[in-house]
Parts: sequence; structure tokens; C-alpha cells
Amino acid sequence: MEIEFLGTGAGSPGKFRNVTSTALRLLDERNSVWLFDVGEATQHQILRTTLKPRKIDKIFITHLHGDHIFGLPGLLSSRSFQGGNAPLTIYGPKGIRDFVEVSLRVSETKLSYKIHYQEITNDGLIFEDPKFRVYAQHLDHRIECFGYRIVEKDHPGELQVEKLRAAQIPSGPVYGQLKAGQTVTLPDGRVVNGQDFLGPAQKGRVVAILGDTRQTQNASRLTQDADVLVHESTFAKGESKLARSYYHSTNIQAAELAKRTHVKMLLLNHISARYTGKMAVELQQQAREVFKNTRVVKDFDLVTIPFQKMIPEDAK
Amino acid sequence: MEIEFLGTGAGSPGKFRNVTSTALRLLDERNSVWLFDVGEATQHQILRTTLKPRKIDKIFITHLHGDHIFGLPGLLSSRSFQGGNAPLTIYGPKGIRDFVEVSLRVSETKLSYKIHYQEITNDGLIFEDPKFRVYAQHLDHRIECFGYRIVEKDHPGELQVEKLRAAQIPSGPVYGQLKAGQTVTLPDGRVVNGQDFLGPAQKGRVVAILGDTRQTQNASRLTQDADVLVHESTFAKGESKLARSYYHSTNIQAAELAKRTHVKMLLLNHISARYTGKMAVELQQQAREVFKNTRVVKDFDLVTIPFQKMIPEDAK
Ligand SMILES: [Zn+2]
Ligand SMILES: [Zn+2]
Repeated sequence: MEIEFLGTGAGSPGKFRNVTSTALRLLDERNSVWLFDVGEATQHQILRTTLKPRKIDKIFITHLHGDHIFGLPGLLSSRSFQGGNAPLTIYGPKGIRDFVEVSLRVSETKLSYKIHYQEITNDGLIFEDPKFRVYAQHLDHRIECFGYRIVEKDHPGELQVEKLRAAQIPSGPVYGQLKAGQTVTLPDGRVVNGQDFLGPAQKGRVVAILGDTRQTQNASRLTQDADVLVHESTFAKGESKLARSYYHSTNIQAAELAKRTHVKMLLLNHISARYTGKMAVELQQQAREVFKNTRVVKDFDLVTIPFQKMIPEDAK
Repeated sequence: MEIEFLGTGAGSPGKFRNVTSTALRLLDERNSVWLFDVGEATQHQILRTTLKPRKIDKIFITHLHGDHIFGLPGLLSSRSFQGGNAPLTIYGPKGIRDFVEVSLRVSETKLSYKIHYQEITNDGLIFEDPKFRVYAQHLDHRIECFGYRIVEKDHPGELQVEKLRAAQIPSGPVYGQLKAGQTVTLPDGRVVNGQDFLGPAQKGRVVAILGDTRQTQNASRLTQDADVLVHESTFAKGESKLARSYYHSTNIQAAELAKRTHVKMLLLNHISARYTGKMAVELQQQAREVFKNTRVVKDFDLVTIPFQKMIPEDAK
């Protein structure tokens, strides 16, 4: 599981940062990629990475401002052109379907795959499969805007075959039951608990990717104990009034949220073209004074999300 | 008057060619720039040139395929963001207004300038001012598609002040009348014809910029005697059947049209990603065997359109 930043700028494309798009690479976990926002020329950015558009099976839109959606029709067209056949789901605020459908209709684009639209109205769980849950929550922007919390389910521990052999438990279908953590009675009458033969479970990872927002109580529901928080930083320290009036956040507000909700790593994006070179470093320094593990990300940065800890056996 | 190529590829963006957009730079002539088609990331390409979005006052769309229009909402937004206040006119097939308006409405984009839409239904003159005329003509593509012929009006000759002085014609308001080519009676009774005191007139230049098309009789009405013809070349020599079935042209068909209609320079664009490096040179060589003054253009190529000839005084 990695996050690859395809566009880390704010408002309009600049020479050094494209408009917003963030890829959550789940290649090991489910052989797919999820995109969060699709600013114009996201498909151009993808050409400079190893990402394959056909692997993108979910697109989450935080809000409908142009710098977050104008790349969507082109990306969908190229995904088709490049042989994508698998269906794709687009999650986002009401209106996203209208935008995509009019774009495809007017341009007479016939896609080789089906799009499912899931326009979000209520906060809460929007997706679940055996490995992941995704939650959406309203944020506070000038236009309706969502943040997303992606929760990986815990990985059960591995069956410890050596330990089973040492205990002279013969292999067979019983191994499957033990791996599932069940208690079984062996042919020789012994009662064995599978939990005793499982390695440590791994806690699933939690990623929070927020759209543009003012500070809002809702955000903490998405970010609580997250392994990684991707948060906008349109303004700098000392500009909180400006941030508020433009419905955005400062780097300090993002860092305070990370600290307050026990996030493990904070990645700041949506960096204004006013902050170039040294000034972007300054944004990072200011935030680190509040929350140490902060990084201002650049286009094409790739951040691996590590497993935070094993769940100790005795805590199972 | 120059043509600057912002995107010379076909269908979808590649590493070396962006999707279609062509700028006609009329900075000396009218301090403005006209765009022909706006594929995705045209505004990104513009960032790498000296073009100013606020100078773009007309956008001509040849057809509504995504590779020709998906950059329009972003470009319009950035033009506003960068302080463009002057109104802008968009010409194109029916549907272009719907696409732009839905994109701006859904994204709640408020522009700082007014857009006039002129959806074209009939072939013929679509614009005229004291210096230019623009004609549109249907072509033959899978979707409704236009080509454009931009005609610069002739530049009248300069008033030859030295010659007037030599003839002892005193300066004054009469110079204005003579410059306009009128015949005037001087205070001393002499009758003088302004035409005798004008330098050579300059023939206006003609540029034809065509959208994607099969070979069609209509094209020649746009290209006849043009100084420059910008023509698609999606296919190569020997692929005319393929070209026809995909509603496109080969390099050879473009060269034959240029030759037949006495064009002075042929610029081939809309080059498929199948033709890279040497193969693009090959496309050019093949076309030159039919029409010598042919060039396969690349992104960011800038071509100056020279005045072809003075109109001799005795032909006035
Ligand atoms: Zn934004
Ligand atoms: Zn095309």
C-alpha cells in the first residue's frame, strides 16, 4: 500500500505542481489502484509513472471544483482506449454524474467498460469488501466537499506449521479450522485451540484523504489514529483568517488536527503557487513544530504506508 | 502572424505529443491570439510558451471529440484566474455550449469575463472585422466537424510622403484623402489621384486549419491558394482504406489536396503515437514526394507566415 501524488498544487496548474490527484496503490492488497480527485492532466501525469489506467477501479471525488475534476473525462476515455474492460465506480458529491455523462455524450465517447456512480449524500460507510472499508464525511468548503477514511481490515496471523508439527498434530483438513482460529478435537482426543498456533495478527492500516476544507469537527472522525493523513495546506502559519474566509486550512491547522487525533504521519498537499522552493520547506518546518512527522509532498512523491504494529498474541 | 502548435498528437496524449490545440498568434495584427481546438492540458502547454491566456479572444472548435475539447473548461477557468476580463467568443459545432456550461455550472466556476457562443450550423462566413474574415466549412468526420479558413484583408500601400513633397503637394488634411486612394483637387487647381502616391499594397495572408476529416470536396474551398494549410495526418502512405474507415486522412491525401489547391506550405499535425522519431520523418518524406513544402510539426513548433507578395502598383 503506497500513496503516489499525481498533483499537489492548488487552484490552477503551475510549472512545478499539477492540480490535485492522489493515487492509493493497492496492488499487493487487491491488484488495483484508487484515485482521489482527478484534476486536469492527471492522465498526463500517469504517463510518467508505472500506474496503469486499467488498474484504477475506484475514483473518489472530494468536491466538484474544476481543479479536482476536469481531468476525469480524459482519463476515463484513455482508460477505455488502453483496453480497460473492468467496471469502474465513481464516488463523489451530487453532480459528478452529470458532468461525466454530458462530457461523454457531447464527445460521443463510447467506453469499453461500465461506470457505476455512487453520489454520496450521507456521512458514513460507502464501501466494504473483505479487505477494506471506506467512510465518507462532509467537510467545510465553499462547495459540498468530502473527506475519505480508508480502513484496511486486520490481517489474521499465519498458521505456525512448525509449531503444529512439534506438537505432533497431523496435517489435514484440521489445519484449515485451526488457521481460522477455531478449537478442534483431534482423533487422539486432545482439544486444541487454533489461536495457540497462529502468529501475530497485523493491524490493518488506516489512511485519511481529505478534500479542501476549513477546520471542522467532522475531520477528526476521519483522521482519528490514522496511519497517514493527507491534508490540504493552502495557507501558512499566521494566515488562519485568510484560510477561513477562503474555506481552506493552514499548515498549522492540519498539524494540530494530526496531533490531536493521534495520526502517525501527515502529508501536506494542495500547495499554493505562492509557496515555491524554500517557502515550501518553510511550510514544512512550521508544521513540524506542531507535529513532527510532517512532510510537504511534491508531484510524483511515493509514500509507503508501513504496518504500524503486530497485535501481540496475548492481546488477541 | 505565426502558428504555434500546442498539441500535435492524435486521440490521446502521449509522452511526446499532446492532444490537439493550435494557436494562431495575431499579436502584431490585432494584439490577440486565436485558439483552434483545446485538448486536455492545453493550458499546461501554454505555461511553457509566451502565450498569455487573457490575449485569447476567440476559440474555434473543429469538432467535439474529447481530444479536441477536454481542455476547454480548465483553460477558461485559468484565463479568469489570471485576470482575463475581455469577452471571449467560442465557435464550434452544436453541443460546445452545453459542454462548457455544464462544466462551469457543476464546478461552480464564476468567470471574470463573458463568453459568447456561436454554434455553427451553416457553411460560410462566421466572422468579419476590418482586418480579417473567417469562413467555416463542414468536413467529413464521424462526428460533425468543421475546417476554418482565416483570411487577412489586403494591407493598403503606405503613403509616399517623399513623392508628395517632390510634387510640391502641401501637407494637411488632403494627405488623409490621398492615403485612402481618393482623387482630390488641390487649392492650385491640380487634380491628383491618391493611387499615384501609394506604395505597393500587401496581399493579406490566408491560413486554413482543418479538423479531423476524410477526403472531401468541401476541404478545397478552405484551402484554395492558402499560404498555410494545417492538415491532419493520422495515417500514412498506403493506408487510405484504413483512413477512410476511421474518417481520417493520410499524409499523401493531405499533400495531394495542398498541391491541387495551390497551397504554399503544408503543416501536418494529428500524428498518431504509432509514428515516433524516424517514422514521423518518414511521414514527412512521403508527403514531400507529392508536395515539396511539407512539414510534420511537433509540439511547440512556431511557424511564421510570411507575406507572399506585394501587389504590383500597375496591377492595382
Ligand atoms: Zn482545490
Ligand atoms: Zn482528433
